[in-house]
Amino acid sequence: MSVPGATRIAYTPERLLAVAVEVFNLRGYDGTSMEDLARATGITKSSIYHHVRSKEELLRLAVSRALDRIFAVLDQPAARTGRAIDRLEHVVRASARVLVDELPYVTLLLRVRGNTATEQWALERRREFDRVVATLVARAVADGDLDDTVEPRLATRLLFGMLNSAVEWYEPARADATADLGAAVWRLASAGLRRRPAGS
Amino acid sequence: MSVPGATRIAYTPERLLAVAVEVFNLRGYDGTSMEDLARATGITKSSIYHHVRSKEELLRLAVSRALDRIFAVLDQPAARTGRAIDRLEHVVRASARVLVDELPYVTLLLRVRGNTATEQWALERRREFDRVVATLVARAVADGDLDDTVEPRLATRLLFGMLNSAVEWYEPARADATADLGAAVWRLASAGLRRRPAGS
Repeated sequence: MSVPGATRIAYTPERLLAVAVEVFNLRGYDGTSMEDLARATGITKSSIYHHVRSKEELLRLAVSRALDRIFAVLDQPAARTGRAIDRLEHVVRASARVLVDELPYVTLLLRVRGNTATEQWALERRREFDRVVATLVARAVADGDLDDTVEPRLATRLLFGMLNSAVEWYEPARADATADLGAAVWRLASAGLRRRPAGS
Repeated sequence: MSVPGATRIAYTPERLLAVAVEVFNLRGYDGTSMEDLARATGITKSSIYHHVRSKEELLRLAVSRALDRIFAVLDQPAARTGRAIDRLEHVVRASARVLVDELPYVTLLLRVRGNTATEQWALERRREFDRVVATLVARAVADGDLDDTVEPRLATRLLFGMLNSAVEWYEPARADATADLGAAVWRLASAGLRRRPAGS
């Protein structure tokens, strides 16, 4: 992973973060040392400490980036007004775009386990997001737009489990079949895969 | 994680594996050292080496256990004969049972990243499983039982993405709402969440 001549690259905090996230995703956060980060960036550990106080600060910056984007979705007008089922559809589609746009950051966020204070905080923020979505699902059930066969929290977990699984297989390079990940997820979650006779 | 007086417990290979899997899932495979395993089991590293040659051998034993169970599903009569959509339903429901029954082992399998030969092998086996399922999905589309709006490989990934996400949130202790994980997954994937007028 070391870049020949990389010592001559001026490392911006942004660039340092991008490389750190790449290494965290490859080796796991716990499995990554500051030495690994120094090797991957081609700059010294003390140069890294010039930008951040610790490995955990890099993790916090990275998961914050993903969380800020994903929570911004909930503030968009289409997520805040209108029928619950339409707001839910918007949240699913917009979250899919965040996942694709910020793939390494969202990947890291979803792999966080909770061994540090930062990880605990990220898990709590994720639960907060899930609670908002579960409330939308419950409201759409109350509106009569969603079926009540699957309990709202379970439905939320399955819906976002399906979407979030994309961090494990989404390939930006061959995005043809997955061009609109959000559309495919919403299609499957709302209508299911089973073919119905025309007109039903 | 150390167990007081654990040195007096006779460690069977099975029990050693169970503890190792627990630690791998907590700290990540890369982030776990043989020292960590010795601490968690309360036995010495040389006692561990009496059972296995390496950390990677523990990983291989653990993911093999999950893979053997999951591939056994494909050999069951209900997965091999009958209409493709019914075979698919069986595979989803039986895979959900494997996930619940072998939760720590399946969790580890799904977190494998591919940094070692064992991980590469496990990933290849997972891809093999996905190919078999994608073939079933494609056949069910050809039979006219599944809609062709979502491409079969993408549908397979979303279907199993949804199911596999359960390793992150399934709680055996409060299995009430998730009692039949496979039924909920199949319900959502086949019929979707959207409520349809009675009789359609």
